[in-house]
Amino acid sequence: MIPKSEIKYIQTLFQKKFRDAEGLYLAEGPKILDEARGAVPAAIQKIFGLDTWINQNRSFYPGVEMNVVAEFELEKISQLKTPNQVVAVMAQPVVTGAIDTRGALVLVLDGIQDPGNLGTIVRIADWFGVPQVVCSRDCADIYSAKVVQATMGSLFRVPVHYTELSAWVGAQKGTPVYGAVLNGTPLKQVQNVAGGILVIGNESKGIRPKVEALLTEKITIEKTGGAESLNAAVATGILLAHLK
Amino acid sequence: MIPKSEIKYIQTLFQKKFRDAEGLYLAEGPKILDEARGAVPAAIQKIFGLDTWINQNRSFYPGVEMNVVAEFELEKISQLKTPNQVVAVMAQPVVTGAIDTRGALVLVLDGIQDPGNLGTIVRIADWFGVPQVVCSRDCADIYSAKVVQATMGSLFRVPVHYTELSAWVGAQKGTPVYGAVLNGTPLKQVQNVAGGILVIGNESKGIRPKVEALLTEKITIEKTGGAESLNAAVATGILLAHLK
Repeated sequence: MIPKSEIKYIQTLFQKKFRDAEGLYLAEGPKILDEARGAVPAAIQKIFGLDTWINQNRSFYPGVEMNVVAEFELEKISQLKTPNQVVAVMAQPVVTGAIDTRGALVLVLDGIQDPGNLGTIVRIADWFGVPQVVCSRDCADIYSAKVVQATMGSLFRVPVHYTELSAWVGAQKGTPVYGAVLNGTPLKQVQNVAGGILVIGNESKGIRPKVEALLTEKITIEKTGGAESLNAAVATGILLAHLK
Repeated sequence: MIPKSEIKYIQTLFQKKFRDAEGLYLAEGPKILDEARGAVPAAIQKIFGLDTWINQNRSFYPGVEMNVVAEFELEKISQLKTPNQVVAVMAQPVVTGAIDTRGALVLVLDGIQDPGNLGTIVRIADWFGVPQVVCSRDCADIYSAKVVQATMGSLFRVPVHYTELSAWVGAQKGTPVYGAVLNGTPLKQVQNVAGGILVIGNESKGIRPKVEALLTEKITIEKTGGAESLNAAVATGILLAHLK
């Protein structure tokens, strides 16, 4: 049992403005918790779980406040349709906008508003060792429940920074800026990319003109069939697999 | 207004067994209807739409039975959370299992059960001009509402066949069979693929052993970061972009 005031406090973290004000977010389910303790153990502030889960996992989280909750309480603090044993309060990392390409591609997302797409893209970035993801301010919030779930834990390993994109990209003088557009160089002709920035645009609107003006190389995934577009996450995967 | 019996009949098509028995399925929304009349006009059996949509579109569907419905009727025959102006009854195409690589890659899906993933994969197949998709019987149903929506109309252009996979793949003697596995040849080393079969497995379980035994070339999308897996649709996009 936990106090009602604690439940209310956790529920405030369902909303972005409270998450940002507190510098916290929520992560749910045994799988995501496993990823969190592997990648960012110090970020785990408090854990609320069913007694079976807490009893089996207590020793994996030394020094973390562990609270046993009843199922009806878990339902109240969960954002999943089917609550999954445990909810953790996590500290948001401090992410700076300093570019860090480490000879790899930094991913820049312009208006990726679908939470599932954003989460899948961060997961792809993690797969390919992207050192940093930079988002426009109108991208979905990385700390919203749907995005956290869709990243499958990759958000613990990939720093995600929100900023005004055209200013940020414009400030990276001398860095090659690749972007996916409809009428660019066919992807197969783009070879030997050592690092830089890769910009992915909103699925229906593409990259905003202000950002597109900053591209130094426009790339197109060639189409041989009939579909009108590719999903933004699929396009990101194809580009990173080829360019990395 | 349409008779209650018609509403009930359409509702039976929400279920796979009735869709298959009748050889029909439902397609919803102006965008999907546009794609249908462009690709498979003869498959459109009946249309039920709000009067505004019917009045604006009647001339695009010569010879098709058009029925004006009220909003409350549309809600009853729609499978979308937010019904979108029009529902069409479509004839399922007759798809044979005869292989048709046309020098391209045929896509074989082993246990893709998530409707969103299946729809996205068919859309990717359409983008890359894949001539045929062959599914194991436990894949999601291509004619279910969620898959139809996720294909964004690509199901009208890509034939999708359901069969017992190991028997089907086993019968394609002399055809190269590529498959995505965890410990195969790095994708970048696989070059000059002229055609054949590409097998994609279930995201968590991979390709079943009986089908994996039939692969002539095992391929791996190399990981340089921390994510445990790639989404099945993203993996399909990466493989097709590289191999086609």
